[in-house]
Amino acid sequence: MDRPNEGVFAWQEADDEKWLALRYDLTAPPLARVYAQHRNDLPTPPYRRFAMGGPVWRNEKPGGPGGRFRQFYQCDADTVGTASMAADAEICAMLADTLETVGIPPRGDYLIRVNNRKVLNGVLEVMGLDEGAQRDAVLRTIDKFDKVGEAGVRALLGKGRLDASGAYIDGVGLEDTQAEPVLAFLTSKGGADAGGETLANLSAAVGDSKIGVEGGVDELKQIADLLAAQGYGPDRIEIDPSVVRGLGYYTGPVFEAELTFEILDEKGRPRQFGSVAGGGRYDDLVKRFTGQAVPATGVSIGVDRLLAALRAKGGRMDGQAEGPVVVTVMDRSRMADYQAMVAELRDAGIRAEVYLGNPKNFGNQLKYADKRSSPVAVIAGSDEFAAGKIQIKDLVLGGAKIAENATLEEWKERPSQFECARGDLVAKVREIIEATDG
Amino acid sequence: MDRPNEGVFAWQEADDEKWLALRYDLTAPPLARVYAQHRNDLPTPPYRRFAMGGPVWRNEKPGGPGGRFRQFYQCDADTVGTASMAADAEICAMLADTLETVGIPPRGDYLIRVNNRKVLNGVLEVMGLDEGAQRDAVLRTIDKFDKVGEAGVRALLGKGRLDASGAYIDGVGLEDTQAEPVLAFLTSKGGADAGGETLANLSAAVGDSKIGVEGGVDELKQIADLLAAQGYGPDRIEIDPSVVRGLGYYTGPVFEAELTFEILDEKGRPRQFGSVAGGGRYDDLVKRFTGQAVPATGVSIGVDRLLAALRAKGGRMDGQAEGPVVVTVMDRSRMADYQAMVAELRDAGIRAEVYLGNPKNFGNQLKYADKRSSPVAVIAGSDEFAAGKIQIKDLVLGGAKIAENATLEEWKERPSQFECARGDLVAKVREIIEATDG
Repeated sequence: MDRPNEGVFAWQEADDEKWLALRYDLTAPPLARVYAQHRNDLPTPPYRRFAMGGPVWRNEKPGGPGGRFRQFYQCDADTVGTASMAADAEICAMLADTLETVGIPPRGDYLIRVNNRKVLNGVLEVMGLDEGAQRDAVLRTIDKFDKVGEAGVRALLGKGRLDASGAYIDGVGLEDTQAEPVLAFLTSKGGADAGGETLANLSAAVGDSKIGVEGGVDELKQIADLLAAQGYGPDRIEIDPSVVRGLGYYTGPVFEAELTFEILDEKGRPRQFGSVAGGGRYDDLVKRFTGQAVPATGVSIGVDRLLAALRAKGGRMDGQAEGPVVVTVMDRSRMADYQAMVAELRDAGIRAEVYLGNPKNFGNQLKYADKRSSPVAVIAGSDEFAAGKIQIKDLVLGGAKIAENATLEEWKERPSQFECARGDLVAKVREIIEATDG
Repeated sequence: MDRPNEGVFAWQEADDEKWLALRYDLTAPPLARVYAQHRNDLPTPPYRRFAMGGPVWRNEKPGGPGGRFRQFYQCDADTVGTASMAADAEICAMLADTLETVGIPPRGDYLIRVNNRKVLNGVLEVMGLDEGAQRDAVLRTIDKFDKVGEAGVRALLGKGRLDASGAYIDGVGLEDTQAEPVLAFLTSKGGADAGGETLANLSAAVGDSKIGVEGGVDELKQIADLLAAQGYGPDRIEIDPSVVRGLGYYTGPVFEAELTFEILDEKGRPRQFGSVAGGGRYDDLVKRFTGQAVPATGVSIGVDRLLAALRAKGGRMDGQAEGPVVVTVMDRSRMADYQAMVAELRDAGIRAEVYLGNPKNFGNQLKYADKRSSPVAVIAGSDEFAAGKIQIKDLVLGGAKIAENATLEEWKERPSQFECARGDLVAKVREIIEATDG
């Protein structure tokens, strides 16, 4: 048997020629295969699916500037079976909602950039570069726009230029007028007016190319209009012709979610965090398995990268979760009663635990509760058991930090320790927790 | 480098002598290693942790009577740093609660069986068999109790017996009186009286062995008392001396959760489902990494086996989830408005999707909603948009199945299609969904 593709972790066990392999990813190609196999049992049109999980594995060198992992988690969402741009718009909107839900603030901290492969195809068509070696050279040059800028690309499309090391890089050999559509395309990004200016520039760049106009530019306009009508302006989702995305299977709109805030890299230098999700339309992928064209679009979020970004940024990932209520132990022989209190609290949806260390030193029990960030300690000794009572200690208000800031009224309204009936355990504990959360 | 232990999936990449391996499990040994490494940063006493996940992998022959998998998921819970039987009782109670939470009914469908290694050690001590070949032979014989019964074990501890195939199996060679404590131990399970009779029988079996009495029997009594005080009677958690559990690292109490209902095996024969979780106390495991004894106890649930049991039993795993609200498309140019309706519903926590197939045939849209098990369809054409209204179609009451059973009053109270203001979308949809759930 042949070894699976490079990049897949794969091995053979002794005495068995079968290859074992680790799951490579959850993105469009495996989805297309699954769809092709089960298409008669899936709801159509369309089939929307999400997949969240992993790990998945890539046998690549880990690390690098993007912080690549060999084992990682993905979150994918796709819509299979519709060519409607409403599906692409929905994917972009969902991506924005997802980033905001996990704690990336809108307007400034992320940007979803949308482009369309057909626009670039239109530009190449206008140039008479539908295929061939010169087309590939132009594409490679476009990929350098981020690094060398407009003047650099202009030179590289023409005669060539000296690079930073002093070496002369041969150009593609186009005349200045021939190179114009590429430069118009690359510099077409307009102001933040919901993409109107960008779209006008792109229209000019694709000229009368049918795929460029009807395919690329019109599709981008549909997506922008759908998103604008739902309140997703270019401060959250914008059309950006510089998005290329390497994967060969995209056929139309392509998306990229970029985190735009700065973090410090491993050497302490500030840099933008960069891409955490990407996707696009892949109308030809299912056809590889069935021969029948099935349009599809989707996105993949790099969960580990997103988590790393949230950690680097601080915020909710840093937030210390509130700890469990600690039921302290005053009388070892009453352990079953203490555990019953914990069970009651847990049944009510309140995290709780009984102290299981050596109970002799009560101070250690409160230190433990403090270390666990407990909001409340419950105390019951023989007096309380005899009277059917418990003591409840408010560790938030009783804690030194809050005590400094509390007014006298707050102290009076909410004493840091009080007695109540055993039967009021859940109600009283909940009061304190809800007051603390509020 | 040496290959990792047998049973671990492991391989070497070309040009690299390092072994790559797949995570073997989440149970006590890896926890002990993690605890040893991070013990200064963990809350003590004690450190409670759960781990839910996987996959983990074992390079074993899949299948077999227990339905073993090579890739599977585990759910583990452990308490490290306390010798208190309250921790063991808590683990057993949690195991019972967990099984009930996922849908295994108490009293009849599961049983958590608890034993204590020290009781067996006490029995062997009484017999003068603390170590050596004869001790190992006795242990092997005890393991056969399930198969050969009391008389069989008696014979095998003595002179030997003919097995089912007619072959003569040599015995251990003990005198009848010498073998008595083993038989007393194996047959010590009493009636369902919270374990009192079983404990009395075990006390007799261990005689004056200190480890047997103070260690094993007393510990079992503490666990039984703690659980009984919290309402976990022997109909859910019982002391059962026949629980042995193969793993060598257990030092005290051992637990096993068994599903006692019958399922049909792959050949259609009824059989008990069997064990889905197991664990116990492992006071010596952390010491292997640190030299310092740290008591610990915990349990591991086989998640895939439990899921298979729930599927085999039927019940909540079979339940078809209610589908999303479908916003239909009457006017393609209004797609942004339809998507805005979906966004509003989703923001309110209601699953919803816009129809993305070809909208020409409205009947197909309702067929799609039906296939998706949608409770509600939302309908808006040019008339509705002009009037600021929407149509809401109750697909549960409107569906043929319910229509048969609904009374006239129900139909009048809840017409299957009605008009409302666009602004009431969420409120009206929620009314229908809540009425359907109720």
